[in-house]
Amino acid sequence: MNLILLESSELDASSIARISGPRFNHIRDVLRAKTGDTIKVGILGGQRGHAHISALSDESLELKICCDKPPPAKLPLTLILALPRPKAARRLCRTIAELGVQKLILLNSYRVEKSYWQSPLLASEKVRAYFIEGLQQAGDTILPELQFEQRFKPFAEDRLPAITHNTRALVAHPYNAESTPRSEQTPTVLAVGPEGGFIPYEIDKLLEAGMHTISIGERILKVETAVPTLLAKLF
Amino acid sequence: MNLILLESSELDASSIARISGPRFNHIRDVLRAKTGDTIKVGILGGQRGHAHISALSDESLELKICCDKPPPAKLPLTLILALPRPKAARRLCRTIAELGVQKLILLNSYRVEKSYWQSPLLASEKVRAYFIEGLQQAGDTILPELQFEQRFKPFAEDRLPAITHNTRALVAHPYNAESTPRSEQTPTVLAVGPEGGFIPYEIDKLLEAGMHTISIGERILKVETAVPTLLAKLF
Repeated sequence: MNLILLESSELDASSIARISGPRFNHIRDVLRAKTGDTIKVGILGGQRGHAHISALSDESLELKICCDKPPPAKLPLTLILALPRPKAARRLCRTIAELGVQKLILLNSYRVEKSYWQSPLLASEKVRAYFIEGLQQAGDTILPELQFEQRFKPFAEDRLPAITHNTRALVAHPYNAESTPRSEQTPTVLAVGPEGGFIPYEIDKLLEAGMHTISIGERILKVETAVPTLLAKLF
Repeated sequence: MNLILLESSELDASSIARISGPRFNHIRDVLRAKTGDTIKVGILGGQRGHAHISALSDESLELKICCDKPPPAKLPLTLILALPRPKAARRLCRTIAELGVQKLILLNSYRVEKSYWQSPLLASEKVRAYFIEGLQQAGDTILPELQFEQRFKPFAEDRLPAITHNTRALVAHPYNAESTPRSEQTPTVLAVGPEGGFIPYEIDKLLEAGMHTISIGERILKVETAVPTLLAKLF
């Protein structure tokens, strides 16, 4: 954790928060902070800054919070990801928040195993916790938006055209692909398929919705490697 | 596995190999291949191509191998990585082979915990197995070179200047950093520090050896995310 995130509801009227549990343990055991020390904090959904440890007991500590810096800019990116297997999804949610993705859409695809959608790891409070881990790593305070799309066809036909409108809309796909120009400010929609890739029918639907295929080269990357690689090439 | 790797010693004079164990299980249970099918294979350290399944029993199968395609090009990169904690090191070795790094040097640093060097996960046959996983993912056949450097100072003073000679030599470090121009063909040496970064003394030593600092932006990335991000920005 390079920044400890707090909910605004944890602060009282004088910007003092009392912390126990995992964040307290981290501050005491990993950061080895003592009364009088200053640590980096952020308000979830708000500013970031620092906190002064005004009291420390065996079970909790008291922080005087001063947050007046904006969080780092998000990538102007909606990432559409074929639902990965649950363990990979957990790591990817962390990485996606860490890298500053604005919105994540987890999409069904022909090659996504049906059972993945039943995983308890996808409960919204779990995903929120992975996102928070990523934000705390990167020093960010703003949660990515999250959307589940369990039916490919109505998503691609009815909702995707509005999402791709006025963006560069790309699907990572090695065939008939264009190169990937870097452009920091361009609103972008990027779709990444499952292991084995989107099937031709799905690619057709994505192209009909205004997307273009891009390639990341000859190597076949795991989705956990492909996502940071694609984002670094695009922004 | 997008390609099954074989040792050249597994092939007989007529390019036939008999496979059992984990690769056999993968071919039967994941690829669900049958007699007569063709699968993608590669010879470790050699070419890649395909194999025809000429016989399949409950415990082994026989492959007729035809490998006549070169592996994908490596990145012209020596990656110097402060030894990460063992579980992260395992994932990173896979990712590094997957991304096509030519040579990996695992380096000690002030912020590397001493115990990491004792981890059984760093045994050379273990690291080789992680590399092979990465190669089989990416469709590559050439193992990265691996070097351990357990003493920072003699490495930086005595060996690093020769390694960085006639390369672009970069250390990922957020302070006084230059931007990261993309250049596919340039021989490159890239150093990535431990969690918390190289200490100032170490940065000085790396700069004395001819390295320049580069930044990947305001977000603090985990080393697992930073490595693919840096490689995608540099190549």
